[in-house]
Amino acid sequence: MFFERIAVIGVGLIGGSFSLALKEKKLCRHVVGAGRSAANLKVALERGVIDSVESDIAAAARSADLILIATPVAQFEKIFLSIVQDLKPSAIVTDAGSTKRDVVAAAREALGAKIAQFVPAHPIAGAEHSGAAAAKADLFRGRRVVVAPLAENSERDIEAVSALWAAAGARVSRMTPQEHDEVFAAVSHLPHLLAYALVDDFSKRPNSAQLFGYAAGGFRDFTRIASSHPEMWRDICMANRDQLLRELRLYEEKLQAMGRMLEAGDAAALEKLFSEARAAREKWLKGDYQ
Amino acid sequence: MFFERIAVIGVGLIGGSFSLALKEKKLCRHVVGAGRSAANLKVALERGVIDSVESDIAAAARSADLILIATPVAQFEKIFLSIVQDLKPSAIVTDAGSTKRDVVAAAREALGAKIAQFVPAHPIAGAEHSGAAAAKADLFRGRRVVVAPLAENSERDIEAVSALWAAAGARVSRMTPQEHDEVFAAVSHLPHLLAYALVDDFSKRPNSAQLFGYAAGGFRDFTRIASSHPEMWRDICMANRDQLLRELRLYEEKLQAMGRMLEAGDAAALEKLFSEARAAREKWLKGDYQ
Repeated sequence: MFFERIAVIGVGLIGGSFSLALKEKKLCRHVVGAGRSAANLKVALERGVIDSVESDIAAAARSADLILIATPVAQFEKIFLSIVQDLKPSAIVTDAGSTKRDVVAAAREALGAKIAQFVPAHPIAGAEHSGAAAAKADLFRGRRVVVAPLAENSERDIEAVSALWAAAGARVSRMTPQEHDEVFAAVSHLPHLLAYALVDDFSKRPNSAQLFGYAAGGFRDFTRIASSHPEMWRDICMANRDQLLRELRLYEEKLQAMGRMLEAGDAAALEKLFSEARAAREKWLKGDYQ
Repeated sequence: MFFERIAVIGVGLIGGSFSLALKEKKLCRHVVGAGRSAANLKVALERGVIDSVESDIAAAARSADLILIATPVAQFEKIFLSIVQDLKPSAIVTDAGSTKRDVVAAAREALGAKIAQFVPAHPIAGAEHSGAAAAKADLFRGRRVVVAPLAENSERDIEAVSALWAAAGARVSRMTPQEHDEVFAAVSHLPHLLAYALVDDFSKRPNSAQLFGYAAGGFRDFTRIASSHPEMWRDICMANRDQLLRELRLYEEKLQAMGRMLEAGDAAALEKLFSEARAAREKWLKGDYQ
Protein backbone atom coordinates (compact mmCIF):
# COMPACT_ATOMS: atom_id res chain seq x y z
CA MET A 1 0.00 0.00 0.00
CA PHE A 2 1.47 3.29 -1.12
CA PHE A 3 -0.11 6.61 -2.13
CA GLU A 4 1.66 8.89 -4.59
CA ARG A 5 -0.18 11.99 -3.49
CA ILE A 6 -2.32 12.63 -0.44
CA ALA A 7 -4.41 15.76 0.11
CA VAL A 8 -5.19 16.77 3.68
CA ILE A 9 -8.03 19.29 3.88
CA GLY A 10 -7.74 20.87 7.31
CA VAL A 11 -4.16 20.43 8.59
CA GLY A 12 -4.94 20.66 12.30
CA LEU A 13 -4.04 18.28 15.10
CA ILE A 14 -5.80 15.32 13.44
CA GLY A 15 -5.03 15.99 9.79
CA GLY A 16 -1.45 17.01 10.55
CA SER A 17 -0.78 14.00 12.77
CA PHE A 18 -2.23 11.67 10.12
CA SER A 19 0.16 13.19 7.58
CA LEU A 20 3.17 12.90 9.89
CA ALA A 21 2.37 9.28 10.72
CA LEU A 22 2.09 8.27 7.04
CA LYS A 23 5.27 10.14 6.12
CA GLU A 24 7.11 8.42 8.98
CA LYS A 25 5.90 5.04 7.70
CA LYS A 26 6.84 6.03 4.12
CA LEU A 27 3.34 5.30 2.89
CA CYS A 28 3.14 8.31 0.57
CA ARG A 29 5.37 10.38 -1.69
CA HIS A 30 3.80 13.81 -1.26
CA VAL A 31 1.24 15.38 1.06
CA VAL A 32 -0.46 18.58 -0.05
CA GLY A 33 -2.31 20.60 2.56
CA ALA A 34 -5.27 22.92 2.16
CA GLY A 35 -7.41 24.82 4.60
CA ARG A 36 -8.88 28.10 5.75
CA SER A 37 -5.90 29.45 7.72
CA ALA A 38 -2.85 30.44 5.68
CA ALA A 39 -0.92 30.97 8.93
CA ASN A 40 -1.63 27.41 10.06
CA LEU A 41 -0.64 25.98 6.67
CA LYS A 42 2.63 27.94 6.87
CA VAL A 43 3.36 26.32 10.25
CA ALA A 44 2.50 22.91 8.80
CA LEU A 45 4.90 23.44 5.90
CA GLU A 46 7.71 24.76 8.11
CA ARG A 47 7.36 21.81 10.50
CA GLY A 48 7.40 19.33 7.60
CA VAL A 49 3.89 18.17 8.44
CA ILE A 50 3.02 18.62 4.76
CA ASP A 51 5.14 18.93 1.60
CA SER A 52 3.24 21.71 -0.14
CA VAL A 53 0.35 24.10 0.27
CA GLU A 54 -2.53 24.56 -2.12
CA SER A 55 -4.81 27.52 -1.49
CA ASP A 56 -7.61 26.04 -3.58
CA ILE A 57 -9.30 22.89 -2.22
CA ALA A 58 -10.40 21.69 -5.67
CA ALA A 59 -6.83 22.00 -6.94
CA ALA A 60 -5.46 20.11 -3.90
CA ALA A 61 -7.89 17.26 -4.46
CA ARG A 62 -7.59 17.09 -8.26
CA SER A 63 -4.48 14.96 -8.52
CA ALA A 64 -4.70 13.26 -5.12
CA ASP A 65 -4.95 9.50 -4.67
CA LEU A 66 -6.24 9.87 -1.14
CA ILE A 67 -8.09 12.83 0.34
CA LEU A 68 -8.55 13.20 4.09
CA ILE A 69 -11.12 15.79 5.21
CA ALA A 70 -10.25 16.81 8.75
CA THR A 71 -11.95 20.18 9.14
CA PRO A 72 -14.89 20.90 11.47
CA VAL A 73 -17.87 18.88 10.22
CA ALA A 74 -19.93 21.95 9.33
CA GLN A 75 -17.54 22.64 6.41
CA PHE A 76 -17.80 19.15 4.91
CA GLU A 77 -20.63 19.78 2.46
CA LYS A 78 -18.86 22.72 0.84
CA ILE A 79 -15.65 20.68 0.64
CA PHE A 80 -17.40 17.71 -0.96
CA LEU A 81 -18.89 20.09 -3.52
CA SER A 82 -15.47 21.61 -4.22
CA ILE A 83 -13.76 18.29 -4.90
CA VAL A 84 -16.46 16.27 -6.69
CA GLN A 85 -15.92 17.67 -10.20
CA ASP A 86 -12.27 16.72 -10.71
CA LEU A 87 -11.95 13.72 -8.40
CA LYS A 88 -9.72 11.01 -9.87
CA PRO A 89 -11.80 7.85 -10.48
CA SER A 90 -9.33 5.81 -8.42
CA ALA A 91 -9.10 8.30 -5.54
CA ILE A 92 -10.35 7.46 -2.06
CA VAL A 93 -11.97 10.19 0.02
CA THR A 94 -12.11 9.71 3.79
CA ASP A 95 -12.72 11.91 6.82
CA ALA A 96 -12.11 12.38 10.53
CA GLY A 97 -15.49 13.75 11.59
CA SER A 98 -16.87 13.08 15.09
CA THR A 99 -20.35 12.23 13.77
CA LYS A 100 -21.09 9.99 10.85
CA ARG A 101 -24.73 10.03 9.69
CA ASP A 102 -24.67 13.75 8.88
CA VAL A 103 -21.32 13.42 7.11
CA VAL A 104 -22.65 10.53 5.02
CA ALA A 105 -25.80 12.51 4.13
CA ALA A 106 -23.69 15.49 3.04
CA ALA A 107 -21.42 13.22 1.02
CA ARG A 108 -24.36 11.51 -0.73
CA GLU A 109 -25.85 14.88 -1.61
CA ALA A 110 -22.60 16.36 -2.93
CA LEU A 111 -20.78 13.37 -4.39
CA GLY A 112 -23.80 11.78 -6.05
CA ALA A 113 -22.71 8.86 -8.25
CA LYS A 114 -19.19 9.10 -6.80
CA ILE A 115 -20.38 8.21 -3.29
CA ALA A 116 -18.63 4.82 -3.46
CA GLN A 117 -15.30 6.67 -3.30
CA PHE A 118 -16.07 8.04 0.18
CA VAL A 119 -15.08 5.81 3.12
CA PRO A 120 -16.23 7.50 6.39
CA ALA A 121 -14.01 7.20 9.46
CA HIS A 122 -13.57 8.66 12.95
CA PRO A 123 -10.24 8.65 14.81
CA ILE A 124 -10.86 8.91 18.58
CA ALA A 125 -8.02 11.21 19.47
CA GLY A 126 -9.10 14.62 20.61
CA ALA A 127 -6.65 16.59 22.67
CA GLU A 128 -6.56 19.93 24.38
CA HIS A 129 -4.12 21.41 21.89
CA SER A 130 -5.04 22.08 18.30
CA GLY A 131 -3.57 23.20 14.99
CA ALA A 132 -0.62 22.02 12.91
CA ALA A 133 1.75 23.14 15.66
CA ALA A 134 0.39 20.37 17.90
CA ALA A 135 0.50 17.60 15.27
CA LYS A 136 2.68 14.59 16.07
CA ALA A 137 3.36 11.29 14.34
CA ASP A 138 2.41 9.15 17.33
CA LEU A 139 -0.92 10.81 18.17
CA PHE A 140 -2.92 7.76 17.10
CA ARG A 141 -0.72 5.10 18.68
CA GLY A 142 -3.01 2.83 20.71
CA ARG A 143 -6.07 4.99 19.95
CA ARG A 144 -9.21 3.65 18.35
CA VAL A 145 -10.35 4.53 14.85
CA VAL A 146 -13.85 3.64 13.73
CA VAL A 147 -14.26 3.02 10.02
CA ALA A 148 -17.97 3.34 9.18
CA PRO A 149 -18.22 2.08 5.59
CA LEU A 150 -21.09 2.51 3.15
CA ALA A 151 -22.77 -0.30 1.24
CA GLU A 152 -21.34 1.26 -1.92
CA ASN A 153 -17.69 1.11 -0.79
CA SER A 154 -15.38 -1.50 -2.27
CA GLU A 155 -13.76 -3.82 0.24
CA ARG A 156 -10.42 -2.77 -1.25
CA ASP A 157 -10.99 0.90 -0.38
CA ILE A 158 -12.27 0.09 3.12
CA GLU A 159 -9.17 -2.04 3.69
CA ALA A 160 -6.89 0.72 2.40
CA VAL A 161 -8.31 3.30 4.81
CA SER A 162 -8.19 0.79 7.67
CA ALA A 163 -4.60 -0.13 6.85
CA LEU A 164 -3.48 3.50 6.86
CA TRP A 165 -4.89 4.09 10.34
CA ALA A 166 -3.42 0.79 11.52
CA ALA A 167 -0.05 1.90 10.16
CA ALA A 168 -0.44 5.10 12.22
CA GLY A 169 -0.65 2.84 15.26
CA ALA A 170 -4.42 2.88 15.77
CA ARG A 171 -6.72 0.01 16.69
CA VAL A 172 -9.21 0.00 13.83
CA SER A 173 -12.74 -1.39 14.00
CA ARG A 174 -15.89 -1.16 11.90
CA MET A 175 -19.40 0.03 12.63
CA THR A 176 -22.27 1.32 10.56
CA PRO A 177 -22.68 5.13 10.63
CA GLN A 178 -25.90 4.63 12.65
CA GLU A 179 -24.19 2.40 15.21
CA HIS A 180 -21.29 4.85 15.44
CA ASP A 181 -23.59 7.75 16.27
CA GLU A 182 -25.49 5.70 18.86
CA VAL A 183 -22.32 4.61 20.67
CA PHE A 184 -20.68 8.04 20.66
CA ALA A 185 -23.84 9.80 21.78
CA ALA A 186 -23.44 7.75 24.96
CA VAL A 187 -19.70 7.61 25.60
CA SER A 188 -18.70 11.05 24.35
CA HIS A 189 -21.47 13.48 23.41
CA LEU A 190 -23.57 13.02 26.56
CA PRO A 191 -20.63 13.48 28.99
CA HIS A 192 -19.71 16.71 27.21
CA LEU A 193 -23.28 17.97 27.59
CA LEU A 194 -23.29 17.00 31.29
CA ALA A 195 -20.01 18.74 32.01
CA TYR A 196 -21.06 21.93 30.22
CA ALA A 197 -24.36 21.80 32.15
CA LEU A 198 -22.69 21.68 35.56
CA VAL A 199 -20.25 24.51 34.90
CA ASP A 200 -22.95 26.66 33.35
CA ASP A 201 -25.28 25.97 36.28
CA PHE A 202 -22.66 27.11 38.81
CA SER A 203 -21.65 30.15 36.79
CA LYS A 204 -25.23 31.49 36.79
CA ARG A 205 -25.69 31.28 40.59
CA PRO A 206 -25.58 34.36 42.84
CA ASN A 207 -22.82 32.59 44.85
CA SER A 208 -20.85 31.36 41.82
CA ALA A 209 -17.59 32.85 43.13
CA GLN A 210 -17.98 30.88 46.37
CA LEU A 211 -18.80 27.65 44.53
CA PHE A 212 -15.84 27.89 42.17
CA GLY A 213 -13.69 28.95 45.12
CA TYR A 214 -14.26 25.59 46.82
CA ALA A 215 -14.30 23.41 43.71
CA ALA A 216 -11.32 21.06 43.82
CA GLY A 217 -9.71 18.20 41.92
CA GLY A 218 -12.85 16.10 41.50
CA PHE A 219 -14.69 19.00 39.91
CA ARG A 220 -11.69 19.83 37.73
CA ASP A 221 -11.54 16.35 36.18
CA PHE A 222 -15.32 16.01 35.93
CA THR A 223 -15.55 19.27 33.97
CA ARG A 224 -12.35 19.07 31.92
CA ILE A 225 -14.37 18.39 28.75
CA ALA A 226 -16.35 21.59 29.38
CA SER A 227 -13.22 23.36 28.13
CA SER A 228 -13.81 21.79 24.71
CA HIS A 229 -14.41 23.93 21.64
CA PRO A 230 -17.99 25.35 21.79
CA GLU A 231 -18.48 25.61 18.02
CA MET A 232 -17.29 22.06 17.41
CA TRP A 233 -19.53 20.69 20.17
CA ARG A 234 -22.51 22.71 19.00
CA ASP A 235 -22.12 21.03 15.60
CA ILE A 236 -21.70 17.56 17.08
CA CYS A 237 -24.75 17.98 19.32
CA MET A 238 -26.86 19.28 16.45
CA ALA A 239 -25.69 16.59 14.02
CA ASN A 240 -26.45 13.80 16.49
CA ARG A 241 -29.29 15.35 18.42
CA ASP A 242 -31.80 12.50 18.11
CA GLN A 243 -29.35 10.02 19.66
CA LEU A 244 -28.08 12.57 22.16
CA LEU A 245 -31.64 13.32 23.30
CA ARG A 246 -32.25 9.60 23.69
CA GLU A 247 -29.13 9.31 25.89
CA LEU A 248 -30.11 12.41 27.86
CA ARG A 249 -33.52 10.88 28.63
CA LEU A 250 -31.93 7.62 29.82
CA TYR A 251 -29.56 9.56 32.03
CA GLU A 252 -32.38 11.67 33.46
CA GLU A 253 -34.23 8.46 34.34
CA LYS A 254 -31.13 7.21 36.15
CA LEU A 255 -30.87 10.46 38.11
CA GLN A 256 -34.55 10.25 39.02
CA ALA A 257 -34.00 6.72 40.31
CA MET A 258 -31.07 7.91 42.43
CA GLY A 259 -33.17 10.85 43.65
CA ARG A 260 -35.76 8.35 44.85
CA MET A 261 -33.06 6.41 46.74
CA LEU A 262 -32.00 9.64 48.45
CA GLU A 263 -35.59 10.61 49.27
CA ALA A 264 -36.27 7.18 50.73
CA GLY A 265 -33.02 7.27 52.69
CA ASP A 266 -32.12 3.96 51.05
CA ALA A 267 -28.45 3.82 51.99
CA ALA A 268 -28.09 0.18 50.95
CA ALA A 269 -29.35 0.84 47.41
CA LEU A 270 -27.00 3.82 47.05
CA GLU A 271 -24.00 1.83 48.27
CA LYS A 272 -24.84 -1.04 45.93
CA LEU A 273 -25.03 1.33 42.97
CA PHE A 274 -21.77 3.07 43.93
CA SER A 275 -20.00 -0.28 44.41
CA GLU A 276 -21.19 -1.69 41.10
CA ALA A 277 -20.26 1.50 39.27
CA ARG A 278 -16.81 1.49 40.80
CA ALA A 279 -16.33 -2.19 39.95
CA ALA A 280 -17.39 -1.56 36.33
CA ARG A 281 -15.00 1.37 36.06
CA GLU A 282 -12.10 -0.61 37.55
CA LYS A 283 -12.81 -3.41 35.08
CA TRP A 284 -12.74 -0.84 32.28
CA LEU A 285 -9.46 0.69 33.52
CA LYS A 286 -7.89 -2.77 33.58
CA GLY A 287 -8.65 -3.01 29.88
CA ASP A 288 -11.23 -5.78 30.17
CA TYR A 289 -13.49 -4.01 27.66
CA GLN A 290 -10.82 -3.38 25.02
CA MET B 1 1.19 27.51 69.64
CA PHE B 2 2.45 24.11 70.72
CA PHE B 3 0.67 20.89 71.71
CA GLU B 4 2.30 18.48 74.13
CA ARG B 5 0.25 15.53 73.03
CA ILE B 6 -1.95 15.06 69.99
CA ALA B 7 -4.24 12.07 69.45
CA VAL B 8 -5.12 11.14 65.89
CA ILE B 9 -8.12 8.81 65.68
CA GLY B 10 -7.97 7.23 62.25
CA VAL B 11 -4.38 7.44 60.95
CA GLY B 12 -5.21 7.30 57.25
CA LEU B 13 -4.18 9.62 54.45
CA ILE B 14 -5.72 12.68 56.12
CA GLY B 15 -4.96 11.95 59.77
CA GLY B 16 -1.47 10.69 58.97
CA SER B 17 -0.62 13.66 56.78
CA PHE B 18 -1.87 16.08 59.45
CA SER B 19 0.41 14.39 61.97
CA LEU B 20 3.44 14.47 59.64
CA ALA B 21 2.87 18.15 58.82
CA LEU B 22 2.69 19.14 62.51
CA LYS B 23 5.74 17.06 63.37
CA GLU B 24 7.68 18.67 60.54
CA LYS B 25 6.70 22.12 61.84
CA LYS B 26 7.58 21.05 65.40
CA LEU B 27 4.15 22.00 66.69
CA CYS B 28 3.79 18.99 68.98
CA ARG B 29 5.89 16.76 71.19
CA HIS B 30 4.08 13.45 70.78
CA VAL B 31 1.40 12.06 68.47
CA VAL B 32 -0.49 8.98 69.57
CA GLY B 33 -2.48 7.11 66.95
CA ALA B 34 -5.59 4.99 67.38
CA GLY B 35 -7.89 3.26 64.92
CA ARG B 36 -9.58 0.09 63.77
CA SER B 37 -6.72 -1.45 61.78
CA ALA B 38 -3.71 -2.66 63.77
CA ALA B 39 -1.85 -3.29 60.51
CA ASN B 40 -2.35 0.31 59.40
CA LEU B 41 -1.22 1.64 62.79
CA LYS B 42 1.89 -0.51 62.55
CA VAL B 43 2.72 1.05 59.17
CA ALA B 44 2.10 4.52 60.65
CA LEU B 45 4.47 3.80 63.54
CA GLU B 46 7.17 2.32 61.29
CA ARG B 47 7.00 5.29 58.92
CA GLY B 48 7.24 7.75 61.84
CA VAL B 49 3.80 9.14 61.04
CA ILE B 50 2.94 8.74 64.75
CA ASP B 51 5.06 8.26 67.87
CA SER B 52 2.99 5.62 69.62
CA VAL B 53 -0.05 3.43 69.20
CA GLU B 54 -2.94 3.13 71.61
CA SER B 55 -5.43 0.35 70.98
CA ASP B 56 -8.11 2.01 73.12
CA ILE B 57 -9.58 5.25 71.79
CA ALA B 58 -10.58 6.50 75.26
CA ALA B 59 -7.02 5.95 76.49
CA ALA B 60 -5.55 7.75 73.46
CA ALA B 61 -7.79 10.77 74.06
CA ARG B 62 -7.43 10.88 77.84
CA SER B 63 -4.20 12.81 78.09
CA ALA B 64 -4.33 14.54 74.69
CA ASP B 65 -4.33 18.32 74.27
CA LEU B 66 -5.67 18.07 70.73
CA ILE B 67 -7.71 15.23 69.27
CA LEU B 68 -8.24 14.92 65.51
CA ILE B 69 -10.98 12.53 64.41
CA ALA B 70 -10.21 11.46 60.85
CA THR B 71 -12.15 8.22 60.46
CA PRO B 72 -15.16 7.71 58.15
CA VAL B 73 -17.97 9.92 59.45
CA ALA B 74 -20.24 6.99 60.34
CA GLN B 75 -17.87 6.12 63.23
CA PHE B 76 -17.88 9.61 64.75
CA GLU B 77 -20.73 9.16 67.21
CA LYS B 78 -19.13 6.10 68.79
CA ILE B 79 -15.80 7.91 69.00
CA PHE B 80 -17.32 10.99 70.63
CA LEU B 81 -18.96 8.70 73.19
CA SER B 82 -15.64 6.95 73.86
CA ILE B 83 -13.71 10.13 74.55
CA VAL B 84 -16.24 12.34 76.36
CA GLN B 85 -15.73 10.88 79.83
CA ASP B 86 -12.05 11.57 80.34
CA LEU B 87 -11.57 14.56 78.04
CA LYS B 88 -9.14 17.12 79.50
CA PRO B 89 -11.00 20.40 80.13
CA SER B 90 -8.41 22.28 78.08
CA ALA B 91 -8.38 19.80 75.19
CA ILE B 92 -9.60 20.74 71.71
CA VAL B 93 -11.41 18.13 69.63
CA THR B 94 -11.55 18.64 65.87
CA ASP B 95 -12.33 16.51 62.83
CA ALA B 96 -11.79 16.01 59.12
CA GLY B 97 -15.27 14.90 58.08
CA SER B 98 -16.64 15.68 54.61
CA THR B 99 -20.03 16.75 55.96
CA LYS B 100 -20.60 19.03 58.90
CA ARG B 101 -24.22 19.23 60.08
CA ASP B 102 -24.41 15.51 60.87
CA VAL B 103 -21.04 15.60 62.62
CA VAL B 104 -22.14 18.56 64.73
CA ALA B 105 -25.39 16.78 65.63
CA ALA B 106 -23.49 13.67 66.69
CA ALA B 107 -21.05 15.77 68.71
CA ARG B 108 -23.84 17.65 70.50
CA GLU B 109 -25.55 14.40 71.36
CA ALA B 110 -22.41 12.69 72.66
CA LEU B 111 -20.38 15.53 74.13
CA GLY B 112 -23.28 17.33 75.82
CA ALA B 113 -21.96 20.14 78.01
CA LYS B 114 -18.47 19.67 76.53
CA ILE B 115 -19.64 20.65 73.02
CA ALA B 116 -17.67 23.92 73.21
CA GLN B 117 -14.47 21.85 73.00
CA PHE B 118 -15.36 20.57 69.52
CA VAL B 119 -14.25 22.74 66.59
CA PRO B 120 -15.53 21.15 63.32
CA ALA B 121 -13.34 21.33 60.23
CA HIS B 122 -13.02 19.85 56.74
CA PRO B 123 -9.72 19.65 54.85
CA ILE B 124 -10.39 19.45 51.07
CA ALA B 125 -7.70 16.98 50.16
CA GLY B 126 -9.04 13.65 49.01
CA ALA B 127 -6.74 11.53 46.92
CA GLU B 128 -6.90 8.19 45.20
CA HIS B 129 -4.54 6.55 47.66
CA SER B 130 -5.47 5.92 51.25
CA GLY B 131 -4.04 4.68 54.52
CA ALA B 132 -0.99 5.65 56.59
CA ALA B 133 1.26 4.38 53.79
CA ALA B 134 0.07 7.27 51.59
CA ALA B 135 0.39 9.99 54.23
CA LYS B 136 2.78 12.84 53.44
CA ALA B 137 3.69 16.08 55.19
CA ASP B 138 2.86 18.30 52.21
CA LEU B 139 -0.59 16.88 51.38
CA PHE B 140 -2.36 20.05 52.49
CA ARG B 141 -0.02 22.55 50.90
CA GLY B 142 -2.15 24.99 48.90
CA ARG B 143 -5.34 23.04 49.67
CA ARG B 144 -8.36 24.58 51.31
CA VAL B 145 -9.55 23.77 54.82
CA VAL B 146 -12.97 24.89 55.96
CA VAL B 147 -13.30 25.52 59.69
CA ALA B 148 -17.00 25.45 60.57
CA PRO B 149 -17.16 26.70 64.16
CA LEU B 150 -20.01 26.44 66.61
CA ALA B 151 -21.50 29.35 68.56
CA GLU B 152 -20.14 27.68 71.70
CA ASN B 153 -16.49 27.58 70.52
CA SER B 154 -14.01 30.02 72.00
CA GLU B 155 -12.27 32.24 69.49
CA ARG B 156 -9.00 30.96 70.96
CA ASP B 157 -9.82 27.33 70.07
CA ILE B 158 -11.06 28.26 66.59
CA GLU B 159 -7.83 30.18 66.02
CA ALA B 160 -5.73 27.27 67.27
CA VAL B 161 -7.34 24.80 64.86
CA SER B 162 -7.08 27.31 62.00
CA ALA B 163 -3.43 27.99 62.81
CA LEU B 164 -2.56 24.27 62.77
CA TRP B 165 -4.02 23.81 59.29
CA ALA B 166 -2.35 27.01 58.11
CA ALA B 167 0.96 25.66 59.45
CA ALA B 168 0.35 22.52 57.38
CA GLY B 169 0.25 24.81 54.34
CA ALA B 170 -3.52 25.02 53.85
CA ARG B 171 -5.63 28.04 52.97
CA VAL B 172 -8.09 28.21 55.84
CA SER B 173 -11.51 29.82 55.71
CA ARG B 174 -14.66 29.81 57.85
CA MET B 175 -18.25 28.85 57.13
CA THR B 176 -21.18 27.76 59.22
CA PRO B 177 -21.85 23.99 59.14
CA GLN B 178 -25.04 24.71 57.13
CA GLU B 179 -23.21 26.83 54.59
CA HIS B 180 -20.48 24.20 54.31
CA ASP B 181 -22.98 21.46 53.50
CA GLU B 182 -24.75 23.63 50.93
CA VAL B 183 -21.53 24.51 49.11
CA PHE B 184 -20.13 20.98 49.10
CA ALA B 185 -23.42 19.44 48.00
CA ALA B 186 -22.91 21.46 44.81
CA VAL B 187 -19.17 21.34 44.16
CA SER B 188 -18.39 17.84 45.40
CA HIS B 189 -21.31 15.61 46.35
CA LEU B 190 -23.40 16.21 43.21
CA PRO B 191 -20.52 15.57 40.76
CA HIS B 192 -19.80 12.27 42.54
CA LEU B 193 -23.46 11.25 42.19
CA LEU B 194 -23.43 12.23 38.50
CA ALA B 195 -20.26 10.27 37.75
CA TYR B 196 -21.52 7.16 39.54
CA ALA B 197 -24.82 7.51 37.63
CA LEU B 198 -23.17 7.53 34.22
CA VAL B 199 -20.92 4.53 34.87
CA ASP B 200 -23.76 2.56 36.42
CA ASP B 201 -26.05 3.41 33.52
CA PHE B 202 -23.54 2.10 30.97
CA SER B 203 -22.71 -1.00 32.99
CA LYS B 204 -26.37 -2.08 33.01
CA ARG B 205 -26.85 -1.85 29.22
CA PRO B 206 -26.95 -4.92 26.97
CA ASN B 207 -24.09 -3.34 24.94
CA SER B 208 -22.03 -2.25 27.94
CA ALA B 209 -18.88 -3.96 26.61
CA GLN B 210 -19.18 -1.98 23.39
CA LEU B 211 -19.77 1.31 25.23
CA PHE B 212 -16.81 0.86 27.56
CA GLY B 213 -14.76 -0.33 24.60
CA TYR B 214 -15.12 3.04 22.90
CA ALA B 215 -14.99 5.24 26.00
CA ALA B 216 -11.85 7.38 25.86
CA GLY B 217 -10.04 10.13 27.74
CA GLY B 218 -13.03 12.43 28.20
CA PHE B 219 -15.04 9.67 29.81
CA ARG B 220 -12.08 8.63 31.96
CA ASP B 221 -11.69 12.09 33.51
CA PHE B 222 -15.45 12.68 33.78
CA THR B 223 -15.88 9.45 35.75
CA ARG B 224 -12.66 9.43 37.78
CA ILE B 225 -14.60 10.23 40.95
CA ALA B 226 -16.79 7.17 40.34
CA SER B 227 -13.78 5.19 41.57
CA SER B 228 -14.23 6.80 44.99
CA HIS B 229 -14.96 4.70 48.06
CA PRO B 230 -18.62 3.53 47.93
CA GLU B 231 -19.10 3.30 51.70
CA MET B 232 -17.68 6.77 52.31
CA TRP B 233 -19.84 8.27 49.58
CA ARG B 234 -22.93 6.47 50.75
CA ASP B 235 -22.41 8.11 54.16
CA ILE B 236 -21.77 11.55 52.66
CA CYS B 237 -24.86 11.34 50.46
CA MET B 238 -27.03 10.18 53.35
CA ALA B 239 -25.67 12.78 55.76
CA ASN B 240 -26.25 15.60 53.30
CA ARG B 241 -29.21 14.27 51.40
CA ASP B 242 -31.51 17.29 51.71
CA GLN B 243 -28.91 19.59 50.16
CA LEU B 244 -27.85 16.96 47.64
CA LEU B 245 -31.45 16.45 46.54
CA ARG B 246 -31.81 20.20 46.14
CA GLU B 247 -28.70 20.29 43.92
CA LEU B 248 -29.89 17.27 41.97
CA ARG B 249 -33.21 19.03 41.20
CA LEU B 250 -31.41 22.17 40.01
CA TYR B 251 -29.19 20.07 37.78
CA GLU B 252 -32.17 18.16 36.38
CA GLU B 253 -33.78 21.49 35.51
CA LYS B 254 -30.62 22.54 33.68
CA LEU B 255 -30.60 19.27 31.72
CA GLN B 256 -34.26 19.73 30.83
CA ALA B 257 -33.48 23.22 29.53
CA MET B 258 -30.66 21.82 27.41
CA GLY B 259 -32.94 19.04 26.19
CA ARG B 260 -35.38 21.71 25.00
CA MET B 261 -32.56 23.45 23.09
CA LEU B 262 -31.74 20.16 21.38
CA GLU B 263 -35.38 19.43 20.58
CA ALA B 264 -35.85 22.90 19.13
CA GLY B 265 -32.63 22.59 17.14
CA ASP B 266 -31.50 25.83 18.78
CA ALA B 267 -27.82 25.72 17.81
CA ALA B 268 -27.21 29.33 18.84
CA ALA B 269 -28.48 28.75 22.40
CA LEU B 270 -26.33 25.63 22.76
CA GLU B 271 -23.23 27.40 21.49
CA LYS B 272 -23.87 30.33 23.84
CA LEU B 273 -24.18 27.98 26.81
CA PHE B 274 -21.06 26.02 25.83
CA SER B 275 -19.09 29.25 25.32
CA GLU B 276 -20.15 30.74 28.64
CA ALA B 277 -19.42 27.49 30.47
CA ARG B 278 -15.98 27.27 28.92
CA ALA B 279 -15.25 30.91 29.77
CA ALA B 280 -16.32 30.36 33.39
CA ARG B 281 -14.13 27.27 33.65
CA GLU B 282 -11.12 29.05 32.14
CA LYS B 283 -11.61 31.89 34.61
CA TRP B 284 -11.69 29.33 37.42
CA LEU B 285 -8.53 27.58 36.16
CA LYS B 286 -6.74 30.93 36.08
CA GLY B 287 -7.48 31.22 39.79
CA ASP B 288 -9.84 34.17 39.53
CA TYR B 289 -12.20 32.54 42.05
CA GLN B 290 -9.56 31.74 44.68
